[in-house]
Parts: sequence; structure tokens; C-alpha cells
Amino acid sequence: MSKRKIRIGMVGYQFMGKAHSNAYRQAPRFFDMDWEPELAVLCGRTEGSLRAAAEKFGWQETETDWRRLVERKDIDLIDVSAPGNLHAPISIAAAENGKMVWCEKPLANTLGEAVAMKEAVDRAGVFHAIFHNYRYCPAVQLARKMIEDGVLGRIYHFRAVYLQDWIADPSFPLVWRLDKTIAGSGAHGDIAAHIIDLARFLVGEFEEVCGHLETFIKQRPKLAATDDRLGGVASSEMGEVTVDDASMFLARFESGAIGTFEATRFAVGRKNHNRFEINGSGGSIVFNLERMNELEFYNANDSAEHRGFQLIQTTDSVHPFASAYWPVGHIIGYEHTFINLVADGFSRMSRGENPTPSFEDGVRNQAILDAVERSSGSRRWEKVSIDQP
Amino acid sequence: MSKRKIRIGMVGYQFMGKAHSNAYRQAPRFFDMDWEPELAVLCGRTEGSLRAAAEKFGWQETETDWRRLVERKDIDLIDVSAPGNLHAPISIAAAENGKMVWCEKPLANTLGEAVAMKEAVDRAGVFHAIFHNYRYCPAVQLARKMIEDGVLGRIYHFRAVYLQDWIADPSFPLVWRLDKTIAGSGAHGDIAAHIIDLARFLVGEFEEVCGHLETFIKQRPKLAATDDRLGGVASSEMGEVTVDDASMFLARFESGAIGTFEATRFAVGRKNHNRFEINGSGGSIVFNLERMNELEFYNANDSAEHRGFQLIQTTDSVHPFASAYWPVGHIIGYEHTFINLVADGFSRMSRGENPTPSFEDGVRNQAILDAVERSSGSRRWEKVSIDQP
Amino acid sequence: MSKRKIRIGMVGYQFMGKAHSNAYRQAPRFFDMDWEPELAVLCGRTEGSLRAAAEKFGWQETETDWRRLVERKDIDLIDVSAPGNLHAPISIAAAENGKMVWCEKPLANTLGEAVAMKEAVDRAGVFHAIFHNYRYCPAVQLARKMIEDGVLGRIYHFRAVYLQDWIADPSFPLVWRLDKTIAGSGAHGDIAAHIIDLARFLVGEFEEVCGHLETFIKQRPKLAATDDRLGGVASSEMGEVTVDDASMFLARFESGAIGTFEATRFAVGRKNHNRFEINGSGGSIVFNLERMNELEFYNANDSAEHRGFQLIQTTDSVHPFASAYWPVGHIIGYEHTFINLVADGFSRMSRGENPTPSFEDGVRNQAILDAVERSSGSRRWEKVSIDQP
Amino acid sequence: MSKRKIRIGMVGYQFMGKAHSNAYRQAPRFFDMDWEPELAVLCGRTEGSLRAAAEKFGWQETETDWRRLVERKDIDLIDVSAPGNLHAPISIAAAENGKMVWCEKPLANTLGEAVAMKEAVDRAGVFHAIFHNYRYCPAVQLARKMIEDGVLGRIYHFRAVYLQDWIADPSFPLVWRLDKTIAGSGAHGDIAAHIIDLARFLVGEFEEVCGHLETFIKQRPKLAATDDRLGGVASSEMGEVTVDDASMFLARFESGAIGTFEATRFAVGRKNHNRFEINGSGGSIVFNLERMNELEFYNANDSAEHRGFQLIQTTDSVHPFASAYWPVGHIIGYEHTFINLVADGFSRMSRGENPTPSFEDGVRNQAILDAVERSSGSRRWEKVSIDQP
Repeated sequence: MSKRKIRIGMVGYQFMGKAHSNAYRQAPRFFDMDWEPELAVLCGRTEGSLRAAAEKFGWQETETDWRRLVERKDIDLIDVSAPGNLHAPISIAAAENGKMVWCEKPLANTLGEAVAMKEAVDRAGVFHAIFHNYRYCPAVQLARKMIEDGVLGRIYHFRAVYLQDWIADPSFPLVWRLDKTIAGSGAHGDIAAHIIDLARFLVGEFEEVCGHLETFIKQRPKLAATDDRLGGVASSEMGEVTVDDASMFLARFESGAIGTFEATRFAVGRKNHNRFEINGSGGSIVFNLERMNELEFYNANDSAEHRGFQLIQTTDSVHPFASAYWPVGHIIGYEHTFINLVADGFSRMSRGENPTPSFEDGVRNQAILDAVERSSGSRRWEKVSIDQP
Repeated sequence: MSKRKIRIGMVGYQFMGKAHSNAYRQAPRFFDMDWEPELAVLCGRTEGSLRAAAEKFGWQETETDWRRLVERKDIDLIDVSAPGNLHAPISIAAAENGKMVWCEKPLANTLGEAVAMKEAVDRAGVFHAIFHNYRYCPAVQLARKMIEDGVLGRIYHFRAVYLQDWIADPSFPLVWRLDKTIAGSGAHGDIAAHIIDLARFLVGEFEEVCGHLETFIKQRPKLAATDDRLGGVASSEMGEVTVDDASMFLARFESGAIGTFEATRFAVGRKNHNRFEINGSGGSIVFNLERMNELEFYNANDSAEHRGFQLIQTTDSVHPFASAYWPVGHIIGYEHTFINLVADGFSRMSRGENPTPSFEDGVRNQAILDAVERSSGSRRWEKVSIDQP
Repeated sequence: MSKRKIRIGMVGYQFMGKAHSNAYRQAPRFFDMDWEPELAVLCGRTEGSLRAAAEKFGWQETETDWRRLVERKDIDLIDVSAPGNLHAPISIAAAENGKMVWCEKPLANTLGEAVAMKEAVDRAGVFHAIFHNYRYCPAVQLARKMIEDGVLGRIYHFRAVYLQDWIADPSFPLVWRLDKTIAGSGAHGDIAAHIIDLARFLVGEFEEVCGHLETFIKQRPKLAATDDRLGGVASSEMGEVTVDDASMFLARFESGAIGTFEATRFAVGRKNHNRFEINGSGGSIVFNLERMNELEFYNANDSAEHRGFQLIQTTDSVHPFASAYWPVGHIIGYEHTFINLVADGFSRMSRGENPTPSFEDGVRNQAILDAVERSSGSRRWEKVSIDQP
Repeated sequence: MSKRKIRIGMVGYQFMGKAHSNAYRQAPRFFDMDWEPELAVLCGRTEGSLRAAAEKFGWQETETDWRRLVERKDIDLIDVSAPGNLHAPISIAAAENGKMVWCEKPLANTLGEAVAMKEAVDRAGVFHAIFHNYRYCPAVQLARKMIEDGVLGRIYHFRAVYLQDWIADPSFPLVWRLDKTIAGSGAHGDIAAHIIDLARFLVGEFEEVCGHLETFIKQRPKLAATDDRLGGVASSEMGEVTVDDASMFLARFESGAIGTFEATRFAVGRKNHNRFEINGSGGSIVFNLERMNELEFYNANDSAEHRGFQLIQTTDSVHPFASAYWPVGHIIGYEHTFINLVADGFSRMSRGENPTPSFEDGVRNQAILDAVERSSGSRRWEKVSIDQP
């Protein structure tokens, strides 16, 4: 079978733009793909840095207006790596132009936008994907397989934290991720969204939630200049923080399982501590992104004398995605979650299937984010519902 | 100074009775104490096993009626290690007879009982203590010291779980700890009470909570016979489980810190996993009872190049209580938390001070348990208050 | 059956004296014993501190001359907790007086002395034991059972380190443990002896060894005064260190397994890091004394998808010695290794058997220490032999 | 400055070929490089699989005779990723044709060959490098920096193991890595060479060694067919294993430090467990390749109350090579060690310096391998010397 090249136009070239570029470039080097990504056009507003990024990451051309990009005939797929407030307009326009749409998470800044995006791709009948990349850790895929195979039995508990500390210093400036009009929310949409996705992937749909969003530092220095990572240079003027610093909530799943969730940027010492534990009648599993090549597994059926949490190194050729890379014990890293996601999504598309996770997953995720936010205001449990009140 | 012997009468000789006996016996072997415990009278209902326990644990006499025990003139201190429904009547009667009262946790089965107990010891002017022994892990004492010294700065987050699995099997029988009339509650009062105490000890008082109590297995085989640990023999008849299997809640502290709490007996593979993490502006600490000789500490002031969570082995002679035992690196165990508590409490009493934690702590703990229980019913946040609604 | 009291006379009351006293006192509180230890006479040279120790540890009487002690008719068992140079004379005299002899490790300061001691107890026909207490960690006992049951298959590798750092500071003074005439050797006899015992217990007898003893700091301040732990106060005068700071050696076992051993007091940051790993055709195990309630186990027969090192918490009632203590997950400590050893040894003696490990084990251990020392001089492999060259 | 393209011809396309290809392709995507690798010609004997590999890994052309390759005028650099017996002939021919030579480790199958290779590149005056990639873990680079900065003070101990289990099954077939004529040695040259390099990089040169090489399984099924990883298909005919299964040795460094080393393919459960610990007067460090983003560090100068091994996540922008990749806490993997090595080596070459490690390092490494092998025969300590006896 001859390979098909999928020409990609990507909006955004910061952290996520770099990760997506790498994934598109590397996926065909490790996986056999019938459809292969082609890094066609990189889009951004600032010409100089845009060109530099394009050259660095290996894009053929640049474009400074996303509206022009989504109308180009030579582009098959639009990758939306811009800030949250641009997800809806770009995605909808891309869909209306018949492009496949792959969008960063969270899908949008509001549930309403997310629903509109989902309707747009459905209406256009185009493939769509959302970059919940942590599903694509081999260890998480193995966890999913174990649950599907019934190894964990009836699930009782899901508990997850996503802990970071990059804004814990009160003098850290007001970067765009702390501005509600651009980012939509703080830790909530940025990282709680990730553990919500993992919960849905592994345990299923949510019924109701009760939560609390907290902003510890309510004023920060305004931004004088950005840097190319997550930070920036502080000015002497202060401004209002309009997003949450931390999000915590309880949940009840449709299955009867219960869950606890916490996401914060104030866990000093925790850098990227995305950890979950699932307890079922047949055993338990633990995952921690900072040691993403490992999965802990307790098998209740092992003999009482010998049982205990076992540390599975998910790098054996029998583990999901592992055979594409290196011999057992030779670990992969953060970037490979994107490579796996791209390889799997392109493989599905080449077979006529939609990638997973999809905009449907994005909308359901957003509905949970939304319910927690409502609950934080109402001070009571709220039903998760795609039809907002 | 000549030593004073404090003659103890203890009610109960199961798990806690064994732990308390050991602590009274061992404390003077490791610590220099002006007041020394004397294992005078052990009290229980079943004469045969009572006598065997007394001999095993080193008690001089036995008594089968606690009412007689609390009236004996030759007894200085009553230890209440009986099930929760007996805490209030025994403690109040003991106080009224002028005895010092040391009671197992939780203080009572209801907040009302707890308040009455507190009033009784206050009225009688007797020393009182509650066995929240985990405060007395050297690592927890070190954590407290670090917080008091300001090492952690402003506290943002407290998160704790207490995970066990001993009733996760649905065929596990209806032991007394699953009967609300005797035990008061399930995981909530038994083990959530512990992490609440640690939170109060380390972070301070609670303002409001929002929680959920869950009973996964609603019917179990009635008990045919007990064993001497936590289990028993199942009969073929089924009965109602009247306590919670799991408790989870969010909290806001008076200081502005926020917290998450989870206690369950359904975390398959977790045996005694009492773990907390505290994040402050100056650093973070992590404790896990299963590795109770260790404290993890992240110092935000260390250089960016070298910092990371450091594993303190709290067995050095500079660590709290450690110099009483063995050279550094030679660990102590669960039982030593009770020995430390007894040594510290007796030392305080000999100096005319009340032990800590006290019935005051018991009441405040109970008020939090109570607020969570109310919240689980009302499905909304509830204020923590000693004056029940 | 009526219990027999075994009246003990113990020489020495420092670190080991404290640990042994505790074990004799506590063993009957946890275990059902037909023969029970009675803390009869504590023996030492310095009357004041001897009396204080006797009172603290619970001994009935004191004696300042070990020669008198071993001749007393009212003593059944002599415990030798004095420094190494006294092991042989006390043990031999005790045996000649018909006493049971329980001796600290290493058995003696030289192989010749050790052999003489073994001959003395054999000639006298008295029970004898050596305090290689680490065998009596439940995790080590479980390891032994797994090997005996064939779970690990053919053993290929044993590797052990015993790492401490208490003399790494060059200004630490010349305590008796650094004086060859008293201690016999340094890290070699003190802690390499422990890992040798574990190797013999788990993998079997040694055939030949090749090693190197190193003294990093050759002069230290002479001792001005001792303290009651392992240290002391330095004077301004310097003296010669006459023992090794570190010992390392390779070994070939009779079974065909091979091993590496390292013991040092210069591993800065390591407090009591006695760790071994055994690799067999059927799986592997790892033990670390600092987390002595745990055993790591890799089962080669588990499925490739799910296998990994599993962390067994050896506190379940099915684990060796564990049912005597607390419910699962409630850990024991260093002192319980001695309690287990005493309970097991007394149980064996009451059934007419000799305790284990015995003076035979002490001699075999000494022969290995001796061969390593010879090898360090000859710079080549040396056969392990009880008949010294 | 305009970039120079370095056209590479690489011999070999198995495991190492894949890793090197990836590194050449990716290095310019993460690092700013004045000289950039160009994947020009891939060379191997079997045309079909060679072409497939070339396409997969991104090479422009193929060549089936390495002699032709090294004579091509359009090639700047020869990468030797072929089995050990080909390292010397290819490298020497490449040097004689004026090519830069980058060679896999160990440099050769014998010390004599290694010396000849070193002489060839010196004579030709060409740049040369050896792929001891583990030096290029950020954590190892940080370790080196800490030692150079004096943070660890005087080094007392180095101890390293490299544990794998891929041939522990006796039915695993006689792949080329078990054939001395091709591979030179077994675990010794394959993985002991790695920990020797780390020891030299961190602690310095060796003075003498004493070791033992062991072959546990002396006969295995001959190979019927290879696979594309490390394994193959067994035939029914048996053949002789001519290399070691395991290597262990003691070492004395020129600095006075002492070391233990063990490399084995029979550590069941250990997949790629390359772990070292260094103890110095100022502190200690621990590294484990399976968690290569982490470095444990004990600082002896921390307060006695708070000190302990701290887990540094070497992903902060201040850590070596880390700023080229992702924000802190987002880990890199095995392949990035090669990317770092290529980026650093090309950067050095563009500045007119030779890469590090170089053929000089390869020769010194080989001299240590050689001394251990001699010692295993002579059963005594042997001096490390480049001039073989």
C-alpha cells in the first residue's frame, strides 16, 4: 500500500507546538504508518520567532494569519496549539473548510464553546482529535487493558493529583495562563483536565461532583516580557489574577465508584506530579507521570505470603507501544506520549476511524470542569451535564 | 526525686489493650520518668480470656465489671480501650471517681457524648488524654517542629489518605466495627479520625468541610465467632452493614490552607497506608505510616540545581524521641508511637500539666467527623462547630 | 506444661546489652514460651553505671566480676555482650561451668579463639547461640523459606552491602571499636560478619574469597571520654587506627553461585544500610534493613505483561513471626529481630534442640572473615577453611 | 554563521544503528548546532533489510560494502555500529581515508586492536569519538559537576552494578553477542564497559583490579534465525558459549578510592539496571539508569535534623542539557543520551576540539577490561596498563 502524506497546518509554536512538531516528525520513524504527517505550514503572529521555530522544528512554510491557513487548499489537517480562547474559532473555521482538526486540551474555555466545536466537526464530517496525551503512556494503556480484562474487578476508588509548583512564588508574573480571558481557567482547565481525562478513560463517566477552586495569590506583577518556556519577566505594576491556583473535588462515577481529584500549581517541590491510584476488588494500580515508564500493580489473587505492589517496567515488547522503541529497560520520555497519540490517531484515520480521544471526549471533559466550577460557586454537589443550566 | 507509681486500671484487652499494655510496660525502660505506670488491673467481661490476657501482658489483677473498677480506691488512672459506645459511660464515671482518664480514639460515637466527656473531666479536674498515637511518630513530631519553626512557610495544602483493605472482601463478616450502635461509624471514625488529628496537629483548626460517606457492600454474613485480631468467622445468615466503608472530604482551614481527606477500608493492597503531604511556600513534607521512620522534605531554599525531596531517616539522636532508643538507622515500629505518647503524657502529668492530645482534641476531632457526616447528608459544605445544630 | 524460668547472667550493658535485655523481657509478652528468660544478674566493671543500667533494663542484681558470675550456681545462661576480646574467655569459662552460652557476634577476634569456643561448648554439652539477629527479620525468614521452597530456583548471584557512616568524619575519636586488640577488626568483623551470615543462611557455604581491607583515616584523636551510644569525646592527642574502615570481597559459593560483599563505615549518608539482592533462575529478592518490614520479590513465572519487583510488606499474619505482633501494616522495628531470635532459641532449647544460629555458625563465619583478611594480605583468592594455615 | 552539514556513513542498522540514526536526526531539532549531521549513507550486508532500515531511519542512500563506504569522497564521518570484531578494521580504514570516526563501545575486542585504532586516528589527525552514551544522562553530567565542584569532597567509594536478565533462560539461543570471535566478551565488554566508563568519568583512573568472569550456562541452542531486537530463534543443535555471563571485580583507583563492579545478564528481573553510588567525605550520590532523570544526593553539610538522600529531578532548565527539551518534570528517555552526546560532540568538533569520550577513553577502558580478564585467569590482583604484558 502506498503511503499518504497528510499535510498539516499548525497554529502555535510554544511548548505544545514544539511537542506536536516532534511527534509528527518522529512517529513515522518508529511506527509503520499508512498515513504519514507532513510538517507543511506553521502559523503564528510574530514573523521572526515564527520563522525560527519553523526552521528549528522542521516546517516547510509559515503563515501569520490563521484565517488564511484554514482556507489553504494544500492543507489536510489543522493542529490547534494556540491558547484556549482561540480553540473554538480556529477549530470551527477549520472544520467548515473541511480540514481534519486536532486540538490541544482543554477543548475550549467554556462548555458552550466546546459543544459548538463538537457540532462543527460533526456537521463537517471531519476527523477530530484532542491531545490528551497522557492516555498514551504505555503504562496508562496497560492500566486500561487490565481494567478491560477485568483484572481489577469492580472499581471502588479513583484518586488523582496533578501537582506542580511553577507559580508558587508570589513574584512570578501574570503570564497569559493566569488570565481568564485567554486561558479560561488556571490549574483547573490546564491540569485537572488531564486527570479527568485519565479518570474517564479508565473508570468511565462521572455522575456528580463537588469541588472548590482557590486562588492563593490574588495579585501578581504584570508581565514585562515572555520567555520561550512557561515563565516571563515581571514588571513593577501589579495586576489581578483571574484564574484559580488550585482545584480540588470529589466525584461519584456512574459505575458506583467514587473519586478524589486535586490539581494545583502551589505544591512546592512537585514539578509534574500527575499521579493516580485505582482500587478495585481484584487489585490496585498506581501511576505517576514523573516515572511514566512504570506501573505499580497489586494483584489480590496472589498468595497472601508473596503479594505486594509490583513495579512493572512497561518497556517490554509485550507492553503497549513499547515494541516500537528500544529493548526492555531503555525508557522513553514525555515526548513519546505525543508520538504514540499521533501514530495511533493516524492509524485510525487511515482505516476510516476517528482518532481517540476525540472532540466528544473534549466536551465530556469540559462538562466535568464546568460542573466543578458551578459547584465551587454553589457550595454543593452538582450533576455533570453537557446541557448547561 | 523519688518516682511515683501510677496504678492503672484498663478496660479492654484486644488490639488496643495489647498496644497500651506494652506502652505502659516499656516506657520506663527507654525513658526516665518521674511517674511510672503500674499495670494494676485489667478489666473485661469474659473471665478466661481476660485472665490469659492479663498474664500475657503483665497485669497484676483482673476485674470483670468496669463499674467496680472505676470505684476502686487503689487505682489512679483508667484506660478506656473498650469499643466506642462504652467510651462515654466509662470515662464519665472514672472522672466522677477522680481518676485520670486516658481514652482510645475517637473520643466517642457522637459529638454530644464527646462534649459530655470533656465536661466531666473538666468538672472533676482530672488529667485526661486521648490515644492519637500517630502524633508521636518521631517523623510527625519533626514535621510539627519544622512547621512551628517556619521552615515550610505559609501552608497552602494538606492532603491525606488512610487506606486499608481488611474488609474489601464482601464475604468478610459483620464484626463489631461494622455495627453503628457499637462503633459509631466505619472508616470515618476509625481512621479518618487519625488523619484529622494529624491535620489539626500540623495545620490547625478546620473551618468547613464537604464530604461523602460510602458503603460499597451493604450486606455481609453475620458473625459466628470473633478472633483475637480484627477478623472473625462468618455465619450463613446475612445482616446489614450500618457504617461507612469509605469517607472522603474536602476542607478549608482557618489559616486559609485547603485540604483533601480520604479514609477507606476498600483500597485493596493498602494495609495501613496513612500518608499525608503538606505543601507550604517554604517547602513540602510527606509522611507514610508504613515507612514511619522516614520523613520526606523538600526545601524550596536549596539551590535549584541540587534540590529535591530528601528522605530523612528520623532515627538520629537529634530527632524527637529517637535518642531513647537505638543508634541511627536502627528503626522503631508501630508500638513505639504508644510508648512515646505514654512517656510524654506521664512526663507532663508529673510536672502538673495535662497530656496532649487531650479530651479537648477529642472533642474538636469529633466536631469535624460530625460536620463531614452532616455534609454527606446535606450534600453541601458544612461549618465545623462544637455546638451541634 | 509449667513454664521454666531460665536465669540469665549477662556481661555488658552498652548497645548490645540494652538490646538483649529488651529481648529477654519482651519475648514472653508476644510469644508463648515454655522456657522464659529471667533477667537475673547484670555484670560490668563500673559499679555506678552498672547499677543504673540494671535498674533501667530490669535486672534483679549486679556483679562486677564476670569470673564470679560464671561460677554462680543460680545462673542458667551466660549472655556475652562484652567487647570481642572477652568473648572467648567468658564463653569458655561459662561452658566449663555448665552454663548455656549466648554470645554476641562476631564469635571471637580470631578464628583460633572461635574454634576454641566451639570446642568448649561441645565438650560441655551446653546449648549455645550467636546473636546474628538479622536472620530473624521476618523478611529474611520469608526469603529463606522462598529459597527452600525452590521459588528462586538455581541461585546465580548474591550481592550485599552493609553501609554506615558513623566514623567518616576524620575527627571522630579512637573508640574501642577502632582498636584491634579489643575489637579484632573494624567494619569487617562488625558488619561484614552480618552480611556473611545472611549469605550463609540464604545461599549456603563459601568456597573461596578474594578481598581487600582499607583504612582511609590512619590516625585519629585519642578518646577523652566515652558516651553511652557509639561515640565519645576526642582528646588533642593522635593515635593509630589499627582496624579497617572498609572491607570488600568477591566470593564463590559451593553451590556455584557467586557473590559480592562490601562493608564500610565511610558511606556518608548511609546509616544502617544492610542490603542484599539474590538472583535465581526463578526470580529475585531484595532486602534492606532500613526498611526491614519489606521484601522485594520478582517472580520470573509471572506473565511478561504484569511482572515486576513486588513490595511484600512482611507484616501479614501468614509471615514468619508476624502474627505475634500487630495487624498487617503495623510495622515492627530493630529490637524485634532480637525478640524473635530469643523466642525461637528458647523454644528450641525447651524442646531439647540447640538454638540457631549457633557457635558452629560463628566459627564458619569467622573462617570467612579470616580468609578475606588473608586474601587482603596475599592479594589473591583464598580458600575458606576452618583449619587455618 | 552558516551551518556546515557533516555527511555521515554508518555501518550497522540494528539496535545501535537505530539509536545513532535517531540522535543524528534529532540533535539539530533540540540544539543549536553549527555543524549538523546529515544522514547520508547506511551500510550493511543484507540489501533488503538494509533498504528498509534506511527508509525507516531517514538515510539518503545505502551501501553494502563498508570498504567502499569508507573510500567515498562525499562522506565526512564514519559511524561504526557493527559488531565488535569489525570495529578495528572499519575504524582504521576510515581514519586512513581521512574520515572522522565515531565508534560504538567497547572500542574493540582486544586491547591490542584498541591501541591500533587509537594510533590510526592520531596518525590521520581526524576527530574520533566513542559512544559511551550514559555519560550524557543529565544526571550523570550533574554528578560530574558536583564532583568537580568539590561538593562530594574526597571520594572514598565507587560501587556500580549493571544488571540485566535477557539471557538468563538457558534455552535462549547462541546469538552473536555470545560468540567470543564476534563480540569479544559477554557482559564484561558489553555492560561492564559502561560502568567502567562512568567510574573513569567520575572518579578517575584505575590502578589495579581483581576480578572473576563466570559462565553459568556453558551450552545453548544454536541460532536458527535472528530477530530485530536482541533475541533470535533457537535451533535443536547445541553450541558452546564462549563469553562470560557475568563479570565482577574490585578496584583501586589512583586517587585512593576503592570500588566494586558487577555486570551480569543473569539478574532475573533486572532489565537495564545500571546503578552506581559514590561516597565522598562531603556527601554521596546515587544514579540508576532505569530512572535516569533522577539523581539522589546526600549533602553531609545539611543539618543533622533535616538531612537525607534527596531526589533531584534533573529536568530543570539549570540542569545539564535539560533546557533543550521540555519544562521541568517532563522526562526524557534513553534515546536522549545519544542526542546529547551527538550535540556535544558536534559542537566540540565545530570549535576544532575532539569529542569526548574519545578513542583515548576507549583504550583506557579496554585496558581495564583486559586487566580484569587477566585477573580472572591469574586469580590475583592485576595492574591496569595500556602496555599489555
